[in-house]
Amino acid sequence: MVSKVKRLLIGRPMKSAEIEGAKLGKFKALAVLSSDALSSVAYGTEQILLVLMAAGFAAVWYSVPISLAVLGLLFILILSYRQTIYAYPAGGGAYIVAKDNLGVSTGLLAGGSLLVDYILTVAVSSSAGTDAITSAFPSLHEHRVLIALVIILVLTVMNLRGVTESASVLATPIYLFVVAIFVLIAAGIVKYATGGAPAHVPEFGAAVSNVSLFLLLKAFSSGCSALTGVEAVSNAIPNFKKPAERNAAATLIMMGTILGAMFIGISLLAYWYGVAPDEKQTVVSQIAESTFGRGAVYYAIQALTALILVLAANTAYSAFPLLAFMLAKDKYMPHAFMVRGDRLGYSNGIIFLGVFSALLVIIFHGNTENLIPLYAVGVFIPFTLSQLGMMVRWIKLRPPGWTTRLAVNTIGMLTTLSITLIFIFTKFTHVWMVFVFLPIVMWTFFAIARHYRNTADELRIDPAEEKPCIKGSTIVVPVAGVTRVVMNSLSYAKSLTDNVVAVYVGFDDEDIERMEKKWAEWDPGVRLITLRSSYRSIIRPIMKFIDTIEWKTAETDHITVLIPQFIAKHWWQHILHNQSSLLLRAYLYNQKDVIIATVPYHLRR
Amino acid sequence: MVSKVKRLLIGRPMKSAEIEGAKLGKFKALAVLSSDALSSVAYGTEQILLVLMAAGFAAVWYSVPISLAVLGLLFILILSYRQTIYAYPAGGGAYIVAKDNLGVSTGLLAGGSLLVDYILTVAVSSSAGTDAITSAFPSLHEHRVLIALVIILVLTVMNLRGVTESASVLATPIYLFVVAIFVLIAAGIVKYATGGAPAHVPEFGAAVSNVSLFLLLKAFSSGCSALTGVEAVSNAIPNFKKPAERNAAATLIMMGTILGAMFIGISLLAYWYGVAPDEKQTVVSQIAESTFGRGAVYYAIQALTALILVLAANTAYSAFPLLAFMLAKDKYMPHAFMVRGDRLGYSNGIIFLGVFSALLVIIFHGNTENLIPLYAVGVFIPFTLSQLGMMVRWIKLRPPGWTTRLAVNTIGMLTTLSITLIFIFTKFTHVWMVFVFLPIVMWTFFAIARHYRNTADELRIDPAEEKPCIKGSTIVVPVAGVTRVVMNSLSYAKSLTDNVVAVYVGFDDEDIERMEKKWAEWDPGVRLITLRSSYRSIIRPIMKFIDTIEWKTAETDHITVLIPQFIAKHWWQHILHNQSSLLLRAYLYNQKDVIIATVPYHLRR
Repeated sequence: MVSKVKRLLIGRPMKSAEIEGAKLGKFKALAVLSSDALSSVAYGTEQILLVLMAAGFAAVWYSVPISLAVLGLLFILILSYRQTIYAYPAGGGAYIVAKDNLGVSTGLLAGGSLLVDYILTVAVSSSAGTDAITSAFPSLHEHRVLIALVIILVLTVMNLRGVTESASVLATPIYLFVVAIFVLIAAGIVKYATGGAPAHVPEFGAAVSNVSLFLLLKAFSSGCSALTGVEAVSNAIPNFKKPAERNAAATLIMMGTILGAMFIGISLLAYWYGVAPDEKQTVVSQIAESTFGRGAVYYAIQALTALILVLAANTAYSAFPLLAFMLAKDKYMPHAFMVRGDRLGYSNGIIFLGVFSALLVIIFHGNTENLIPLYAVGVFIPFTLSQLGMMVRWIKLRPPGWTTRLAVNTIGMLTTLSITLIFIFTKFTHVWMVFVFLPIVMWTFFAIARHYRNTADELRIDPAEEKPCIKGSTIVVPVAGVTRVVMNSLSYAKSLTDNVVAVYVGFDDEDIERMEKKWAEWDPGVRLITLRSSYRSIIRPIMKFIDTIEWKTAETDHITVLIPQFIAKHWWQHILHNQSSLLLRAYLYNQKDVIIATVPYHLRR
Repeated sequence: MVSKVKRLLIGRPMKSAEIEGAKLGKFKALAVLSSDALSSVAYGTEQILLVLMAAGFAAVWYSVPISLAVLGLLFILILSYRQTIYAYPAGGGAYIVAKDNLGVSTGLLAGGSLLVDYILTVAVSSSAGTDAITSAFPSLHEHRVLIALVIILVLTVMNLRGVTESASVLATPIYLFVVAIFVLIAAGIVKYATGGAPAHVPEFGAAVSNVSLFLLLKAFSSGCSALTGVEAVSNAIPNFKKPAERNAAATLIMMGTILGAMFIGISLLAYWYGVAPDEKQTVVSQIAESTFGRGAVYYAIQALTALILVLAANTAYSAFPLLAFMLAKDKYMPHAFMVRGDRLGYSNGIIFLGVFSALLVIIFHGNTENLIPLYAVGVFIPFTLSQLGMMVRWIKLRPPGWTTRLAVNTIGMLTTLSITLIFIFTKFTHVWMVFVFLPIVMWTFFAIARHYRNTADELRIDPAEEKPCIKGSTIVVPVAGVTRVVMNSLSYAKSLTDNVVAVYVGFDDEDIERMEKKWAEWDPGVRLITLRSSYRSIIRPIMKFIDTIEWKTAETDHITVLIPQFIAKHWWQHILHNQSSLLLRAYLYNQKDVIIATVPYHLRR
């Protein structure tokens, strides 16, 4: 039943050998990995304008140079990450690069902030997508948590089905979105060039009295939120078709070009059309309305924007399981994150991401806006560490032309570091949680690693010296009466050894006497020991009895507790039987060094 | 940890021998068993007045003769149940009496409706008590579901602590309530006699044009809701101190006398003071206000009334587990209901009642008023069946003076039957669910009984003929590497038999080759078989392998699958290890006739 539902949702299991077919080509990769980055154009320009408006409408012209600066940073990041892809063809996320060059702790710091960040990405994006939907259909507003959860559920299932299938689903809307934005930019430029745009625009380069450097930096850092998602490609190299690094680098360049063009285009149009941020209408929506009017094209652009925001969450679904896999391989996260599911994805990572982001949505009732600065910091910390790592690498290895590469990474590192500091400085009330989360995550990583190391030490044997050794055997069979199940168990026990003893727990003398008489009549060739329980517990007397046996024979014998058990045919029948045997097993299992054996008897009816 | 919390809530475990000390004397029994019945005076008169008001205020004088009729019915029921107590000193609930005299199906019908009814009692009473609380503190209104759930939780824990302790807790408020109502009645009569009451009262005996027989019957049946709870004493005889039947009979008479006096007192005062039912104020509240004004005495009466409504639920906590015990003893309910908990109560029944009534409260959002008629029908069906059973008994046994007893039960049966029919007839929209619930409950009873019978048949052996027999043994040990855990398992296996085979599942050829080499180096004296899994599942190849072994050797050998397992020291460490062994055990357990043994290795760190 369960497995049928699973088949329907997830699809047939795939052989391990099918893995190459499940990998990504350049164009599919662009669809899977770029939605987070590309969706940023829906809000990047707006973030800048929002900060500038604090100095009045006259200050909005600064958005153009600031956008150019962001574009410059994007260029640096792309160059920098391109270098990383070629340096780390097996996957060069911030975790790997930082660990490799700056030590394990720094690597875990980068990896931990990325993991937390991916969870935030899914929560924030699904909530933002929901907002877009409920703006169009206000009657759905009270169901926003439910809608966000449905979005997360759909993304989770899609990703459990596997990478390529979800890529096929995603490719169309992402390419349509890109086309729509370019159409919008082209039409907007034409209209502006032919004089169809409103003339009322603040003068470019005019000095505005209350614009401080602080304000400009804040606007710049806000604009940098458009750059989140750029790292996705370099994390995901192992998901690419061969030659993986070349495909990845090409994908990165394509993504950077598209993102840069769209971002600067939107920023320019926003300036030319004199758009000011408005609570009720997004900047993109205002530009689209000015260019096309509220017609079919306008609604198509809005719908695609909403869709792309939802799909941005999907980037995290590619990145999180891969990063979790790498951390698990290094024993900083549970082994379970290394298991490939039926469809060759790392199912546990996908499910973990889905569950935790759903929890965030529930806890914040879908109002996750306040998480956005947190989420930006969570990206820029690993950005910085990754580039610092690359710097160290160039200095250590000194390959031909290393000085240029060092320069690229140094500029990148300093910029991202500044942005991180600006974020912490200007928005401390929103980002302080990072200083709580990260230590906890780091501590967990180390605790897990310590446990795995200890376990491995404890379980390791010296193959030359340590061999299996043979001992005697004593078998204890708890019995509840004279039944077929007990008979089967005794048959089994007697087949293995002659030291078999049956134990019966009675609640009063009458009860015990009756059992002893029955046993004598049956005479199965096994000694019966009866115990009296004053507290109506079966477990405690048996545990005590086993203590005694252990004390007497553990030196010479293996002690086995043989638990007769009949297994009902239908699930509901299970609740009709006292599950003392399950309870006994659980107790023995946790507290005793005895072997626990179950002799099953399957009921036919 | 869990067990410490349990100790704190429930108290120390008690020996079975302490059971006599946990039984009830007359006065404690009155407290435990009568709250349901006595609390009815809080709404009994009001129910009558509500129906009569349909014919106008002039009709309220009918409440006096109707109350007398209810009193008469109470008298008949008390007489009738007193006869039952002496006839069935081991506990004469409707289930026992009906089963004994009318056959098993009828008994189950009575028992089933009582079980459903007790759940309804708890849900309805806790909601009514909550209403009383939130009427006093309106700000709590939005938390009513939570408050009702807390009440149920408190009652459940109290009852898990044991019968006598909960009796001590209950006795004080119940006796205070009785005293308060009698003080109210006495003061009210004095005030009326001294002419202090309002004179404006409809004339007694005046004909009212639109009062039909149907209306009077409906008012009478509504008043009969005050009689629910009378059966509690006769169900609970085994809970009484010896001599149980005499103490029970005395308790029943006391309860009947108090209930009757309070009920008729309130009805008379209501008429004398010209009280009409009011949505915002209960009849008792109106009388108390007219008598004492809104002072301390008034609030004390209100508070005690609220408390008693909550405690009415407690009656069900005494009655449900006992009835469930009896049904379980007869194999119509799961054996689990026969187990006495640490504090000698039937814990599973108490917990079951708590959980299901809490579910009802949640499903109905605490608005359980509509369940009241359902609940009344659920009581009157077993009333009728029980008395029908007594009639049959007198006719069969014909003890001295049986004709009088037959007459008492016949009158009682006809009256309760009429009331049941009136309920079904006048309130079908509320009670139709009974015709859905009862068949389901009955079907469940029979299904459980059939399962127990089949199981017993299947497990029964002929002690003279069937004895344990000795066979050979083959042991299969799934291994995941060369570790201490595997070594321990092989030591154990080799101690038992020479037919030991280790199985390794690899995901690719490299992996398998590596393992084979390691094994050869170690040379533990056990043959290793390697299996290749294309789908990354460990379970499926092992299951297939065991199929083959079974096919080859099941005739001559017991097959044991020995599962090496290391057990983490801390709970959180469990999630760090793939629980393949648990999964493998679950599969084997359900699908195969092989013995499953676990060799535990307890991690030290």
